[in-house]
Amino acid sequence: MFSLCLQPSASLKVQREEIIGSRGYYSTRVARNPNLEKLQTNYLFPEILERELKHVEKYPNAKVISLGIGDTTQPLPEPVALSMSNYARALSTPQGYTGYGLEQGNKLLLGSNVSIAVQDPSFPGYIDSSVIMGQSGDLKNDSGRYGNIKYMKCNLENDFFPDLSKIERTDVIFFCSPNNPTGHAASRQQLQQLVEFAQVNGSIIVYDAAYSAYISDSSPKSIYEIPGSRKVAIEISSFSKTAGFTGVRLGWTVVPKELLYLNGFPVIHDFNRIICTSFNGASNIAQAGGLACLSPEGFKEVMFKVDYYKENARILVETFTSLGFRVYGGSNAPYVWVHFPGSKSWNVFNWILDKTHIITVPGIGFGPAGEGYIRVSAFGHRESILEASKRLITLLCHTN
Amino acid sequence: MFSLCLQPSASLKVQREEIIGSRGYYSTRVARNPNLEKLQTNYLFPEILERELKHVEKYPNAKVISLGIGDTTQPLPEPVALSMSNYARALSTPQGYTGYGLEQGNKLLLGSNVSIAVQDPSFPGYIDSSVIMGQSGDLKNDSGRYGNIKYMKCNLENDFFPDLSKIERTDVIFFCSPNNPTGHAASRQQLQQLVEFAQVNGSIIVYDAAYSAYISDSSPKSIYEIPGSRKVAIEISSFSKTAGFTGVRLGWTVVPKELLYLNGFPVIHDFNRIICTSFNGASNIAQAGGLACLSPEGFKEVMFKVDYYKENARILVETFTSLGFRVYGGSNAPYVWVHFPGSKSWNVFNWILDKTHIITVPGIGFGPAGEGYIRVSAFGHRESILEASKRLITLLCHTN
Repeated sequence: MFSLCLQPSASLKVQREEIIGSRGYYSTRVARNPNLEKLQTNYLFPEILERELKHVEKYPNAKVISLGIGDTTQPLPEPVALSMSNYARALSTPQGYTGYGLEQGNKLLLGSNVSIAVQDPSFPGYIDSSVIMGQSGDLKNDSGRYGNIKYMKCNLENDFFPDLSKIERTDVIFFCSPNNPTGHAASRQQLQQLVEFAQVNGSIIVYDAAYSAYISDSSPKSIYEIPGSRKVAIEISSFSKTAGFTGVRLGWTVVPKELLYLNGFPVIHDFNRIICTSFNGASNIAQAGGLACLSPEGFKEVMFKVDYYKENARILVETFTSLGFRVYGGSNAPYVWVHFPGSKSWNVFNWILDKTHIITVPGIGFGPAGEGYIRVSAFGHRESILEASKRLITLLCHTN
Repeated sequence: MFSLCLQPSASLKVQREEIIGSRGYYSTRVARNPNLEKLQTNYLFPEILERELKHVEKYPNAKVISLGIGDTTQPLPEPVALSMSNYARALSTPQGYTGYGLEQGNKLLLGSNVSIAVQDPSFPGYIDSSVIMGQSGDLKNDSGRYGNIKYMKCNLENDFFPDLSKIERTDVIFFCSPNNPTGHAASRQQLQQLVEFAQVNGSIIVYDAAYSAYISDSSPKSIYEIPGSRKVAIEISSFSKTAGFTGVRLGWTVVPKELLYLNGFPVIHDFNRIICTSFNGASNIAQAGGLACLSPEGFKEVMFKVDYYKENARILVETFTSLGFRVYGGSNAPYVWVHFPGSKSWNVFNWILDKTHIITVPGIGFGPAGEGYIRVSAFGHRESILEASKRLITLLCHTN
């Protein structure tokens, strides 16, 4: 048997010793993915967690309330949990057992030579995924922006919907409505503009409808309510923020068969291929839960959970409004977007944490246009929301 | 409000009409990911499924036995199913509810400028993922090989372990042991060679130990049994092929902190970052099941399932051996690798399907070195395995 590796030749031995010798430690010769070096140092939520831990060290007896990360807190609807429980139980019986199921997922589809646009502010995942895939270009010093990403500013001046006349064409437009973090749900007219903008530019909209169940007014709950959208839009959503599946993990992606690449090839075929290759579908138990969410009984209870969080949001909006702040979101979304004009959002974050032991999210973490805002999550227990409201009123009535 | 999109300007309107007009249909202007165009047309298992469907059309009354796709068939161990059932049930109670959990995953880590080596034959997923990520180079006509992938031939001549003296350096070496499809478990001495080969070359081994529970002899069950491996190897595994989690979905990745990029940066940090950004962890219910698999009672029952499939493999090995075939694998793996010297493996596949209504997998589907072999999966029900054995004996005793 060949034994090069047990007794390496002199030259290879020397080479290896050089690798170790020159630096005092052994590393592989594999270069780090340069895209990863471009990522900004701290991912928003770990940074917030770190500040929370430091705060707890400083105030060991404080009762910290987290209105930061948008993690659900209400138990699952009973019929949904029951359905998953029964499904899991049956997996140990010959009749109930199933192996590989249908597949799904959404990575790697368009490759790295793709230009993207995102709402500013928006959920950091869109940008960070694009950076990792090599689509972003380099980070421009101090601006907090990547060179090849187009930022669609959404702020007070434009009613939190981008001025599309100022946006250059990109291949992909990430668009989240109701938006995380601003809570703004785009109107029908605004989404018609967006679809027409994509049609004119030959762009693909990736429409994130994760919060659509929170819409109270007549704003569309799906991009497909807009005529012509099937030729230009993919829609993604999940059970996370409605049925509380943040831990159970189940979402979906709609890729209309009418959506075509420049060469006429249907996007759905590549999507399917990637899923079959790189993913193998969501857990079958989670899927059983998803089906139960869609049953009449399950759906009703899911909407009770949504109503619970909407009432939380209403309390938070009322609290901040009564204190004289301008507040956005909260009526069509589980997030309240509070304006502190002229302030740095990390300073506001620190000040609120220090004075009230409440965790929020600094708006700047969602993009440069989030500066001066904080995002307050309504996904807490009712008692926490009420307690937070009390603390804020105590703090701010004394301060203002 | 800005209304470009509701009333597009003349020039944009013309542009859009040109897009539609020149071809008679509307497409986006987004180019197809060129990496996807490089993928070979049919993914192995869909191709097999298609042939199965055609077969069933031709023989509507045939009782087809599938020894093809490696999907488990035995119910989950009872304590594991019970644990997941209880966990799911408790998710509808305030005490039992949990949201986002710890995160994990394994995509996008090394980027596209990475050279890779794979065993030939091997599970097609390694190559297809690399093609999608742009690491493979172009497919070379007729050879079935991609230009930038190094194929480590594993066949009869080298005891199914590659001759490393003939393999060029690559950044990443995918290595599956016990191997899918050959069923060969690398010996301790062979794995020492592999680790030393990686050390000398500064490569990273991605060691797939998904079938290690099937090892009956003294072959290592983990690459980390080999001294020095923590500086050069990542190990991946899952509960799929032991506890039968092909549908429940739960696996793990070990990235030792000692594993460093060329620049000295620990790989684990990037791994963690990607997971936090692109994935959000496996379903919490599946994780409850995984923990139950590791309890003393659960582990014992998991190993009963493994023994069941090993007995299936023994029956298949005995069947083919008694018919005069040279058979590999099956003793350390749930796959039996049957040699048909001089035959094309798709022809063997068709012949067996046509004569016995048994689905296998043609060896060529796992790489050029798989030509002349078929892979037979032991993941069936015992009755199917025994029935398949009977049909094969009937066919081949009459034929030979």
